[in-house]
Amino acid sequence: MKRIGRQTLEFGGPSGIPDGLPSILGRGAIGGKKEAAGPLGGDFHQTFDDGRLNTQSWEKAEAQLQKEAVSVALASAGCQPQEIQMIFAGDLLNQCISSTFGLLDYQIPFLGQYGACSTMAQTLLMAAVMVDCGAAEKTAAVTSSHFCSAERQFRTPLEYGAQRTPTAQWTATAAGCVIVGKGGRVKVLHGLAGRAVDLGVKDPANMGAAMAPAAADSIYQYLTDTGTQPKDYDGIFTGDLGMVGSQLLLETLKDNGIDLAPMHNDCGLMLFDRQSQDVHAGGSGCGCSASVLCGHLLNRMERGELKNILFCATGALMSTTSQQQGEAIPGVCHIVHLRV
Amino acid sequence: MKRIGRQTLEFGGPSGIPDGLPSILGRGAIGGKKEAAGPLGGDFHQTFDDGRLNTQSWEKAEAQLQKEAVSVALASAGCQPQEIQMIFAGDLLNQCISSTFGLLDYQIPFLGQYGACSTMAQTLLMAAVMVDCGAAEKTAAVTSSHFCSAERQFRTPLEYGAQRTPTAQWTATAAGCVIVGKGGRVKVLHGLAGRAVDLGVKDPANMGAAMAPAAADSIYQYLTDTGTQPKDYDGIFTGDLGMVGSQLLLETLKDNGIDLAPMHNDCGLMLFDRQSQDVHAGGSGCGCSASVLCGHLLNRMERGELKNILFCATGALMSTTSQQQGEAIPGVCHIVHLRV
Repeated sequence: MKRIGRQTLEFGGPSGIPDGLPSILGRGAIGGKKEAAGPLGGDFHQTFDDGRLNTQSWEKAEAQLQKEAVSVALASAGCQPQEIQMIFAGDLLNQCISSTFGLLDYQIPFLGQYGACSTMAQTLLMAAVMVDCGAAEKTAAVTSSHFCSAERQFRTPLEYGAQRTPTAQWTATAAGCVIVGKGGRVKVLHGLAGRAVDLGVKDPANMGAAMAPAAADSIYQYLTDTGTQPKDYDGIFTGDLGMVGSQLLLETLKDNGIDLAPMHNDCGLMLFDRQSQDVHAGGSGCGCSASVLCGHLLNRMERGELKNILFCATGALMSTTSQQQGEAIPGVCHIVHLRV
Repeated sequence: MKRIGRQTLEFGGPSGIPDGLPSILGRGAIGGKKEAAGPLGGDFHQTFDDGRLNTQSWEKAEAQLQKEAVSVALASAGCQPQEIQMIFAGDLLNQCISSTFGLLDYQIPFLGQYGACSTMAQTLLMAAVMVDCGAAEKTAAVTSSHFCSAERQFRTPLEYGAQRTPTAQWTATAAGCVIVGKGGRVKVLHGLAGRAVDLGVKDPANMGAAMAPAAADSIYQYLTDTGTQPKDYDGIFTGDLGMVGSQLLLETLKDNGIDLAPMHNDCGLMLFDRQSQDVHAGGSGCGCSASVLCGHLLNRMERGELKNILFCATGALMSTTSQQQGEAIPGVCHIVHLRV
């Protein structure tokens, strides 16, 4: 592994031997009913009609989503839990309890991560670093979100039926997990850990606007560090900026001489059909970009439709307390470069 | 870096060149009034009589503790913020807002960690891995806790004046930060990422009992992996098991043929004077073990009083929601081996 430019990591050691690169050995994308009914419904490995997944609470259901995602990913990698030497996991719930309780039974050394909705990129980045440097042969990266557990924790009781503003996004009920090791087809070539960026957006119903500056900062830095342009990639996927944040990102980068539009899509705009599924500005939540990556995007990479992508997951770093105390909402964006 | 045994990482590459090892370049230990009045008061780099640190809330004060800890650590390492290529940080507050807002101004690539009170060991472990493998030249690890922000989030409003049981611990108002790079006197030789261990303890006023099994699991595994015994170290410091958890740890390891007692101390028992400071079973909170490490322990290492220690920070992985839903309290313990 080596650093290139200011912030980017290049995997594979100085020689950059392809077989030595960290790669995706297995994966699992789990979704709820609404996600199954969306345009990417066929890309999930498993979906659940019951929002409680046969548990007694939404929080336990979210933990179950992570458990299922890991189970599917392990099976697709042909691995037992004891072969996984570290698991990187996090979620949106206070003290990341979906990860704690969802993964407890696997008994894998556990490193909790907190990156809000950027967690899939952050955990995958950490998992890839550990494999690349020999700290582990196999690692796992997993995250989740659940519409109902997020609503009642961050917003209002569901029963209250609060009206949502047009800029609001819909938290996905979903989870994604990848198993990282050497020898898989889809390689992790580069990674970038983003800086928290705060341009003063304070509206918690407009997370896209809060996160777009961080996405612009990280993508601009990544392209600068690697000396590449958007057209060098088959796709650059942010998650989850939604409609508002995506437009802001494209405008910001255009102002800086980068035309991202032809290559860009956003996981929050892909997961749901905004016309028919009433999700306002799009999907969000750790599970949104996680399940789009672990399902749809990696499916397309394995089919050869996409060969070279940037996965740029974005997170809004806030809590109800920070909101109540008048803080703005800093964003963060971590990037992983994947190639077949 | 290489793996030894089942879970332990050995830093320094196959050759183990001492100058190539990650090491402590600078550090900062910040405390509140009660911490300043305790037996380790003289070991802090900075203490504050005002629990609000001139801010408008306890949460903002906790963020300020992290900011100060990083500031002191940077100064003692002779570094500018832009030289730090990654910062690993976390805390107990929902969505880790002390880390987000405390570190925002530094503009360092930010990787949020969640390990509850084990966060200092987890962040230091991550920071050391990144330096060892060349992902970064210099990294930082920081965490904090604040008695008042923790009480009102996890327990009861302070104004309520709830009586505490004898097994309860007192959340330290403190923060600790280390700057990790190559060439410092105190080296990071080994690290271990722990598994979450749940033996069914459900009492949130007895975190020591909830975390002791994880401490036993990680310490037993570390000694097995490295083929060492407690007497090979000048000290083995857990944090923060308090009186109840420490006794359980010693008994559990004794039952497994390991006599930890002569070398063991617990950061939660060191930070406060239990006789005069009314902290019941001892100190706790991310900032407890963090400030004891970054102040007292590293002071003693630099004076040559301690040359070879294990720092074994423990965390209780729970939230108020998981408690209300009847879940037990899994513990986790991460270990870092430091030597002058």
